Amino acid sequence: MSETAQMTMLYAEVQHFYARQMHRLDGGDFPAYAATFTLDGEFSHTPGREPARTRAGITAELYDFNQKYAADPVQRRHLFTMIDIDGIEGQGDGGIRSTCYALVVKTRPGSDSPEFTSCVVHDVLVRVDGELLTKSRRVDYDKLM
Amino acid sequence: MSETAQMTMLYAEVQHFYARQMHRLDGGDFPAYAATFTLDGEFSHTPGREPARTRAGITAELYDFNQKYAADPVQRRHLFTMIDIDGIEGQGDGGIRSTCYALVVKTRPGSDSPEFTSCVVHDVLVRVDGELLTKSRRVDYDKLM
Amino acid sequence: MSETAQMTMLYAEVQHFYARQMHRLDGGDFPAYAATFTLDGEFSHTPGREPARTRAGITAELYDFNQKYAADPVQRRHLFTMIDIDGIEGQGDGGIRSTCYALVVKTRPGSDSPEFTSCVVHDVLVRVDGELLTKSRRVDYDKLM
Repeated sequence: MSETAQMTMLYAEVQHFYARQMHRLDGGDFPAYAATFTLDGEFSHTPGREPARTRAGITAELYDFNQKYAADPVQRRHLFTMIDIDGIEGQGDGGIRSTCYALVVKTRPGSDSPEFTSCVVHDVLVRVDGELLTKSRRVDYDKLM
Repeated sequence: MSETAQMTMLYAEVQHFYARQMHRLDGGDFPAYAATFTLDGEFSHTPGREPARTRAGITAELYDFNQKYAADPVQRRHLFTMIDIDGIEGQGDGGIRSTCYALVVKTRPGSDSPEFTSCVVHDVLVRVDGELLTKSRRVDYDKLM
Repeated sequence: MSETAQMTMLYAEVQHFYARQMHRLDGGDFPAYAATFTLDGEFSHTPGREPARTRAGITAELYDFNQKYAADPVQRRHLFTMIDIDGIEGQGDGGIRSTCYALVVKTRPGSDSPEFTSCVVHDVLVRVDGELLTKSRRVDYDKLM
């Protein structure tokens, strides 16, 4: 298969992977979200906060982080767009580096105007038993730049 | 062709289909939008409102619904992202289930700050004479959750 | 290769091209952005303003345009979605016509609420030495419609 064909397949697969991954997060299924990370996965979602590690650690972190919405429910949607993938698989051995924009849309019940946060997501993706997984994720916030 | 290659082609085709379909809607060409549905297509865009059925029914519904903008013109853009497709074609016979986020951007003439609505779109897509068509669409609004 | 496979590869390539192109622009690397245009490329980003031409011209235009942010720094993100490509390569000889939505997200340091502009981008893309380049780009703003 040509390198262009390989990149095309990987590009669509990463888009699809992100859609499923973030549907899980936005649906509040934190263990299912954590299962999209490798066993030793690392997730750094807020600058200044220690990264969460391992699936159990990521799950616990998300339950903890989302407690702030308990008294103020909000439906969040993470829109990942403008994905840049740095090379196809098998080039080097450090996994696939993926950088994309994330627009976080937060809607409160009955509200007519969602709130937004603009971020950049820096991922390393690896393939385990045929499936893509996130090995590490760092989220940078535009407002802090 | 491998299942991965089939999914890649379907994924790109669905993205392209949505782009063309929503350009028609946002351009105000309601009959052309309705033509992207099957002859017996069903479109449920507002909770509590009876779904529109058939192309003629969908067209009529859109003309009716958009009358509210007659005295208050607005340019709408439907941004479909984070598309999840549940399986490739030929698996089961109920069509392709596609779920995606829709961010609706509404800009008024001369306005510097668009308004937004965040939705989730639930589609069943089928292939008729080689072309993808929407068999049914249900739109859920985040603000009502 | 089938026409569907060709379109799939082109569609993913255009998405990837746009991601890399706009990461350069949003990162403030104007010469690198200009290098994604053909040598005779044309960039019309604001109605009523003369289009910038050639890579040097586009670079100069961007430095000039961005001076307005010098005293009021802002992180911009250009989210290109809903891409429609009009045919595959080799059909006709005028390049690939690509039309997409662009949501521009502007975040100020420390700000919790980004500002937005909704646009439609009209591109002609061509392939030079194997790589996609923008031959011409015209940006229409929804607020002016």
